This record gives sequence, structure tokens and C-alpha cells, in this order.
Amino acid sequence: MQLLAEVGKGLREDSIKKMSVDTKKNRNDLVTNFDKKTEKFVNGKIKEAYPEATIVSEEGYGDLVKDMSGLVFFVDPIDGTMNFVKRGDNFASMIGVYIDGEPLIGAIIDVMDNEIYHGGKEIGLFINEEPIDDPKNLPLVEGLVDVSAPMALSNKFSVQDVIKKSSGFRVYGSAGIIFGHLLTGKEVMYMSYLAPWDLAAGRVMCEAAGMNVASIDGTPINMLESQVVIVGTQKVVSEALKTLKTR
Amino acid sequence: MQLLAEVGKGLREDSIKKMSVDTKKNRNDLVTNFDKKTEKFVNGKIKEAYPEATIVSEEGYGDLVKDMSGLVFFVDPIDGTMNFVKRGDNFASMIGVYIDGEPLIGAIIDVMDNEIYHGGKEIGLFINEEPIDDPKNLPLVEGLVDVSAPMALSNKFSVQDVIKKSSGFRVYGSAGIIFGHLLTGKEVMYMSYLAPWDLAAGRVMCEAAGMNVASIDGTPINMLESQVVIVGTQKVVSEALKTLKTR
Repeated sequence: MQLLAEVGKGLREDSIKKMSVDTKKNRNDLVTNFDKKTEKFVNGKIKEAYPEATIVSEEGYGDLVKDMSGLVFFVDPIDGTMNFVKRGDNFASMIGVYIDGEPLIGAIIDVMDNEIYHGGKEIGLFINEEPIDDPKNLPLVEGLVDVSAPMALSNKFSVQDVIKKSSGFRVYGSAGIIFGHLLTGKEVMYMSYLAPWDLAAGRVMCEAAGMNVASIDGTPINMLESQVVIVGTQKVVSEALKTLKTR
Repeated sequence: MQLLAEVGKGLREDSIKKMSVDTKKNRNDLVTNFDKKTEKFVNGKIKEAYPEATIVSEEGYGDLVKDMSGLVFFVDPIDGTMNFVKRGDNFASMIGVYIDGEPLIGAIIDVMDNEIYHGGKEIGLFINEEPIDDPKNLPLVEGLVDVSAPMALSNKFSVQDVIKKSSGFRVYGSAGIIFGHLLTGKEVMYMSYLAPWDLAAGRVMCEAAGMNVASIDGTPINMLESQVVIVGTQKVVSEALKTLKTR
């Protein structure tokens, strides 16, 4: 978790730097640089500590990983880039660790709030090293749901039928931030099209917390491909899968 | 601002109490009680300090206000009730003050973050008593927009055409919290159907910050009625009004 704490500190400094840059074009270049710089730093540290590991990551400093055998790390240096650029809050940095395809450890830092979530099935769940309880297994009618904006607005898979059965709809724009909401019971469902590095850390922790992480067509989650994923309490995911129309 | 600081402290304690109550029914009753108790407290303090003022408020402890003459206070004890109940964060308490129909002072507390926004055209804008700069007059393409969930999902007024021209869509579920985002430049537009107490404080401060607060059909804002309101930078509101279809 030391690693993510360091990443967080760096990104908070970057966030201030970004604001001081004048033109939009330069600012966008800078953000891309922050993304790459952070991934390079994280991947380097991982390779140092676990030379045998392979790394799946967004910005191109990872390995070409063809199967999930052995120790596989997933790295997302800045999750919620638009929030990083436009808001300066509600963005995250994430690391997920799998061994022979099995979820082992996940870690997410809410960078600006400086809150680190970490855990796994074996060790339990923590916020800033303090153990937390699993969220309640609430039904859809009792909780707030977060669905990616394009999916919700276009009513893909008739997802608005699920939203209407919930107690309300929220859009935060960062998978990492929303995983934090799920782990603390602030929301009961998240649905989005996610890349491997968007999903890896959150999947480990949500499954460890007794939640369900499912593809919407019943196929097993493939950690080496992007896919539409639904994450939530057992009750909510089961209700949602019955309601969604996947044809 | 002392008053809102006190309100915030009380509501943070209430938020903890709420969680310790067992059944859902009791919890809902409790929340209604918190709402009423807070409004009664705020309205009492206002009447003490300004006996000549009239009060427009949500829970029934206000006056029957028929026109905007003299000193009129608008009180929303808990804005974002669903967030208060389900999340325990991102809810607000708001007071707006008007004199002979003119916006005078607005104050909003983000209760859980304990951040108080206050200000008006004469005095400027502050967060926790520290002066802040006006947000930049960004165009739609450069900022995030927040539109109420029912309006966005049903594409009312073709609002999705506005959303598609922005850099992204967010839903936070509390007018007070979103006014804070507008004042700090984290978002550039908010559109929703708002009651007088939802709008009053935010309108004062957003107008003081150089933003535009408009009805979508070109009629003047009526502070004694609920209406669809669009709030944002001058550029964004002008672009949005051209794009929206009001028939």
C-alpha cells in the first residue's frame, strides 16, 4: 500500500502543476505525461519486487500477456482521467493482483481524498489499513446505482428498467471511485464497459466483500479482454440480470 | 455562517444516529424528524435575528409568502435527502436571502465535508471564509455537466443533445453539492426541476460568480414557484438554450 500512497502523493502534486499550465493543448499533453510517468513508476516497482510477474496496463509499459498463469498485475495509473482533467477530484489509481487466474489482492487509492482501499478474500478489506465490514446485501429498491453515462443515456440493454427499480441513479465517472462506494455500501450496483485494468482491483475486493461481479450474458469474466460488467450486492445483481435485455 | 456551521455539526451527529437505528421504517421516520428539526432550528434563529423577515421553507415551518417584497429567506434543511439516507455523504443545507426580489446572500454547507460556501454580488464568494475566484467562462465542450436523472434518462427537452456536446455527464443527486461544483469550476452546467428552496442560495452565489441562471423558456425566474432551471457559465447556458427543444 506504500506504493499507492507514493503514487497518490505524486498525482496530487501533478494535479496542482496541471492547473498552472496555460493552454489547453499543453495541459492535455501534460496529463498524458502524468499517466505514462505514473504507470512507468508503478510497473518498475512491481518488476523490482516480483521479477517473475507479468503486467497488464493501460499506457504501454506492461507486458503482452496471453494467459493468466502465474502472477499477473493489472495497473491503471489514472482512472477517471476526465475527472482528473476537469474536476481535480474523484479520480483513482488501481492495482489488481491475480495468481493463476484467481483474484488475490486489490488496491485502489482515491487520490484527492487520500483514501486507500485494499484487500482480498484471504486478508479481508481495509481503508487506510483499518479493517472494514462487508456491505449489506441490499436489494435494488434500497440502494443507489451507478451506470456509465453512454450506457444509461442510450438505454443499452434496457438498463433504465434496472435504474427505475433502484432508489436513485448516480454518475461519478471513475470505476475506482465507484468501487469505493460499493465497498462502503454507498451504492449497490455499478454497470459499465470496462477494460481489464478498470476492473481488476475492484473485482478482487468486491468479491472478497461478498458481492457479485458478473458479465451480463452469463459468460465467465475474461480478465484479458474488455467487457460489459455488472458489479453489486448478490441480490441486486440477480435482480438486474433478470431485468436486463441482452437479446 | 455560524448558523450553518451549527446545522452541519448537528446533521453529522444525526447521520451517525441514523445508521444505528435498526429497521428501515424507523430510519425513514428519523430522517423526516432530522429534516423537520433542522428547519425548525434554522427558521427560529432567523426569526430571532430578523423578526421582519418572511421564510420560504420545505417542511412547513415557514410562512405563506405571496410576494418577494422585503426580506425573504429560503431554507432547505437537508438537500439531497436520498444521499443523506443511502450514502451518508454529498448532502447539503442551504439558506438564500433576497431583498425586494433581489438576490442578496446565499450560503450552502456540504455537511460531511464541512465546507461552507457563502457570498453575494456585494461581498464576493467564500469557502470557509476564504475568498475564491470566479470560475472561468468555459464553453460546453470543455466542461462536465450535471442534469437531474429523470430529465437526462427520458431525454426531456432533448437535453441529451446538450450532454453530448459537453466533455462528460455526471449525476450527484443534490442541488447544493452541485452548486459547489459550479462555483469551483468542477462542472460547467446544472439543469433540473427545482423548488424555490433548492434554487435560492445557489442562484445568489452563481449569479455573483458571473454565471447565468435561466429558465429554459426565456421567462424570468419566479422565486415563489418550482421550475426547470439551467445554471452554468455564460457560454454554456447560451449554447444549451440554443440546443434544447422546449417546443
